[in-house]
Amino acid sequence: MLSFDITGNYTDLYEITMGEVYFLSSRKDEPACFDYSFRKNPFHGGYVLFAGLQDLLDILEDLHFTEADLAFLKSLNFKPPYLDFLKHFRFRGSVHSVREGEVIFPNCPVIHVRGTLFETQLIETLLLNIINFESLIATKASRIRYVAGDRILSDFGLRRAQGPGGILAAKAAIAGGFNSTSNVYAASLYHLPAAGTMAHSFIQSYDSELEAFRVYAGSRPDHCVFLVDTYDTIRSGVPNAIIVAREMEKAGNKAAGIRLDSGDLAWLAKASRKMLDEAGLSYIKIIASNQLDEFVIRSLLEQQAPIDVFGVGTHLVTGQPDAALDGVYKLAMFAGKPRLKLSESLQKVTLPGIKKVMRAMDVNGRFWGADAVILDEEEKAHTIFHANAPEKFISVASYRQEPLLQPVMIGGKQVSPHYALPDISAYGSQRLNCLPEDYKRFENPHTYKVGISKKLMDLRDTLRNQHRAAIE
Amino acid sequence: MLSFDITGNYTDLYEITMGEVYFLSSRKDEPACFDYSFRKNPFHGGYVLFAGLQDLLDILEDLHFTEADLAFLKSLNFKPPYLDFLKHFRFRGSVHSVREGEVIFPNCPVIHVRGTLFETQLIETLLLNIINFESLIATKASRIRYVAGDRILSDFGLRRAQGPGGILAAKAAIAGGFNSTSNVYAASLYHLPAAGTMAHSFIQSYDSELEAFRVYAGSRPDHCVFLVDTYDTIRSGVPNAIIVAREMEKAGNKAAGIRLDSGDLAWLAKASRKMLDEAGLSYIKIIASNQLDEFVIRSLLEQQAPIDVFGVGTHLVTGQPDAALDGVYKLAMFAGKPRLKLSESLQKVTLPGIKKVMRAMDVNGRFWGADAVILDEEEKAHTIFHANAPEKFISVASYRQEPLLQPVMIGGKQVSPHYALPDISAYGSQRLNCLPEDYKRFENPHTYKVGISKKLMDLRDTLRNQHRAAIE
Repeated sequence: MLSFDITGNYTDLYEITMGEVYFLSSRKDEPACFDYSFRKNPFHGGYVLFAGLQDLLDILEDLHFTEADLAFLKSLNFKPPYLDFLKHFRFRGSVHSVREGEVIFPNCPVIHVRGTLFETQLIETLLLNIINFESLIATKASRIRYVAGDRILSDFGLRRAQGPGGILAAKAAIAGGFNSTSNVYAASLYHLPAAGTMAHSFIQSYDSELEAFRVYAGSRPDHCVFLVDTYDTIRSGVPNAIIVAREMEKAGNKAAGIRLDSGDLAWLAKASRKMLDEAGLSYIKIIASNQLDEFVIRSLLEQQAPIDVFGVGTHLVTGQPDAALDGVYKLAMFAGKPRLKLSESLQKVTLPGIKKVMRAMDVNGRFWGADAVILDEEEKAHTIFHANAPEKFISVASYRQEPLLQPVMIGGKQVSPHYALPDISAYGSQRLNCLPEDYKRFENPHTYKVGISKKLMDLRDTLRNQHRAAIE
Repeated sequence: MLSFDITGNYTDLYEITMGEVYFLSSRKDEPACFDYSFRKNPFHGGYVLFAGLQDLLDILEDLHFTEADLAFLKSLNFKPPYLDFLKHFRFRGSVHSVREGEVIFPNCPVIHVRGTLFETQLIETLLLNIINFESLIATKASRIRYVAGDRILSDFGLRRAQGPGGILAAKAAIAGGFNSTSNVYAASLYHLPAAGTMAHSFIQSYDSELEAFRVYAGSRPDHCVFLVDTYDTIRSGVPNAIIVAREMEKAGNKAAGIRLDSGDLAWLAKASRKMLDEAGLSYIKIIASNQLDEFVIRSLLEQQAPIDVFGVGTHLVTGQPDAALDGVYKLAMFAGKPRLKLSESLQKVTLPGIKKVMRAMDVNGRFWGADAVILDEEEKAHTIFHANAPEKFISVASYRQEPLLQPVMIGGKQVSPHYALPDISAYGSQRLNCLPEDYKRFENPHTYKVGISKKLMDLRDTLRNQHRAAIE
């Protein structure tokens, strides 16, 4: 059986390589702190919906190197003492994080990991892999939910997903506001509602579409959705669905819906709705699929297409057109000293020290529009500065400030409540409701401000000047 | 441990749902044939490099429903007789396919699956999931290889990959011409060369860059690549790398390289090369990373940037900007009869019957530029027609014709040689060499012709007319 396990080797080789250097030079147990942040909102949007935390914590709690992992590392010439250390390795670090389902913004540290240098470095790749991807897909899902209102949204994407990435995508889609998935494995693993009825091949395998619908209705009268575009939606699919739905009524059953999967979905939905209503079958829902995304769904609904359920595949599960969130994980403290990276690129300069994040809230309990990154020693934020353009500053002193980072793991054990997926989804929805519309629109959304305190800026600049002085 | 297994439930719910209908109506064992093809080349390119076959065959040979799978299906109200059937299910079908590493084109059936209706339908989702994704990434990798010449290419993408999709991506990248991966898990699972040295955090954790380089060189003198952009590439990183490389020489060691990860890579590579050469360190290689893709690498090499190794991450492992290949799996025969789907969209009409594919070869053994899809009963291709525009036709009669589909699985057992990844990669490279340049260029590549025989067209049109007559 092909199986993919998140073990110690689920990482980049350089984490293991650096780990060996730390091991050999007796630095592996020195205290270190890393921050996770991302640099750019995906989809030209105004926010990211944070997801993947529960998976990350579950992984960290059990992270270890298997015998197969160690055998492979041995084949790469890692030496027995280090391999023996890896054999007994467990993650015993601590994690502070924003809550899963939080709305987050670029260049704001939203996960803070403390522990030994070895353990905090080792988990870099897997933390990024899980958080970047689940947050990308939850964000995409939330955009689709935003345009779909209270219509039903189902993930149909496994066939076009990036291999087993489709499993995390199905789950993250639910976190972002979807109702169900066609992905049975994901549904089983993560307790998601599963959905799905028939393919074109089912209909093709019968000599007539009518016969196919009848047989299906006979076998599964409770979950009967007829796929109506195999031959001709309006002249064959819908009329046959109507015939069988009426036959079902005589047996005391009700067909659930019809599915449109090609052609002009707006026109076909209207024509189908009219035919169904005229046949007295107004309870039959219309499901649409075929290369949908938030823009196509918005267009369909602007045209008043009477579609009740959207099945979204490729664009959802791969997060098209971006396909990746550019999150990074950067060293902020080591051995009690704040640490800085300068880089050749201004936006890659990091924020040193132990920090907290305060979100300014307006009098209505909505987001006012700024997150403040301050040093841990600071009580609350006052004036905050644009990290790369300090001539831009604002005061958040008069606003209520919510601290966003909370302890979720201490000494390798989870300390936060284990939020179930419906809770995460509900929290995401609630927090998105707190985000003003300006930040949620698709075209040129308002830029949410993330500023740093004077003390943090001074710390960064002092370190920068020290590094520069050392170079001169 | 979070684990993702390719089991019976790694599928869309509708496959299981249809299966129950087939089971209940005693049709599950009727013979059926499905074809895999894709509709559109990714990346606006001229071809796809076919990958994922060996994984698919390995999965099919062992495919089964686990106890956990069955328990979940029971919770969805599937009934005991069907669950009992699933419990004993094994895939016993047959597969004909083009060889892994083959160069393939849109609308050409490249995998042909025969077996019972149940088993051939069940595997639809997993076949599409594996083949679509691995082929997408192998294609992307081959484009990067095309511009990189014989320079070394390494996958650095796991942190931005779509969750565990990064494992298959690392493997498919090697199939498409990459040399190595940073992904330890993928390297272990698929026996790939692993690569990786140090991150910025390693350097930050020391009080000086020089000290960091020295410690690393002391611990790992054999694989020493210095990351030089943490503070200032030209004024700090490269000078420090030179100091440590010279110290290594005194101990009889040689540094392997420096890595540039930000800024103007062309300019920095030239400046760094000059500094290294002037220091007598011309053996030190220059490695570049940071949001690379085939276009950036082409541009760097057009500028004569002296880069020896490219580390490619996000764009490679997610197949940006497309992120998915649009492959489909369509019923072609059932119960001895050819089957057709019409659809509302012309390009979604299928090709019925059992088919073979002949590739026209020119006198130099290169691809002449056309694949012929003919019926199994036909010996070879003569005149072939555009499937949707029959007024377009050409003759391939005078060309040598290679049959592309070969049996790879019979009765659920693999019958083709188990090609190791280096063989697949070499075959892909060889076949891409047979593809004229016109089809490989990135801008408006030549359209490779895929035509159907007169007999196949007649069969399709006869079925279409029958369906239309039934609708009227």
